[in-house]
Amino acid sequence: MINPFSDEYFMKQALEEAHKAFDEDEIPVGAIVVCNNRIIARAHNLTERLNDVTAHAEMQAITAAANYLGGKYLKDCTLYVTLEPCNMCAGALAWSQISRIVYGAGDKKRGFSAFSPSPLHPRTELITGILEEACADLVKRFFVKKR
Amino acid sequence: MINPFSDEYFMKQALEEAHKAFDEDEIPVGAIVVCNNRIIARAHNLTERLNDVTAHAEMQAITAAANYLGGKYLKDCTLYVTLEPCNMCAGALAWSQISRIVYGAGDKKRGFSAFSPSPLHPRTELITGILEEACADLVKRFFVKKR
Repeated sequence: MINPFSDEYFMKQALEEAHKAFDEDEIPVGAIVVCNNRIIARAHNLTERLNDVTAHAEMQAITAAANYLGGKYLKDCTLYVTLEPCNMCAGALAWSQISRIVYGAGDKKRGFSAFSPSPLHPRTELITGILEEACADLVKRFFVKKR
Repeated sequence: MINPFSDEYFMKQALEEAHKAFDEDEIPVGAIVVCNNRIIARAHNLTERLNDVTAHAEMQAITAAANYLGGKYLKDCTLYVTLEPCNMCAGALAWSQISRIVYGAGDKKRGFSAFSPSPLHPRTELITGILEEACADLVKRFFVKKR
């Protein structure tokens, strides 16, 4: 039997969130948290609307997932995010002890790997490049629109 | 005339916040944001009460200060925090473009400098070691109590 719950399947859900951000004139990044193949948190970047640099998709998704689970650690969860997390979000993910992080497009300038080679929790698995082109294209289109 | 608004003066205010965290059985870290010698945000660590790894004193202080100012950048502000910020908080402070960061005690294991040599905004001034002993002692006392 084919497992419908692939990384591509869940990244499409994160991309849907990123599209919402795009439509709201926010830098288009979306994130979801999955636990036992169930989406327990959905979020998109809201830094403009909330006037808050900490309102990245990942930060909101971490807070929402912990709230759903009733505990602050996300040890059996996967975060799917369309863009490589920044240093702030990587730091938050480290504190959460999340099991897996899957991101779409890399972010050479602002992604965590530009600052810290290993800021994540040592037990966190990192998967990159899932639906990379679609994730990157959305960000590119946003900045073209902004020019 | 003596200027009453020294770094020591404001760090004492941050220490007051850290004491509140201690009394609430939270890792005792306190932070304030100052703009034109006026305290515009006060916060202490609430990760246990809120069940949220992102609820560090600094993160809350950044959000509260931006809310007070009505804009997300803290360009003319100073953050006073009793302990060296972690990678997450350093990343958030970088996004905020804050003018100055003053911390009390260093944190060799979890402080940002253990992960990233320069995660802060290039225009952010960093001052360290203000009331270092009092800030460090409070954290030590907390972990002794927890044993």
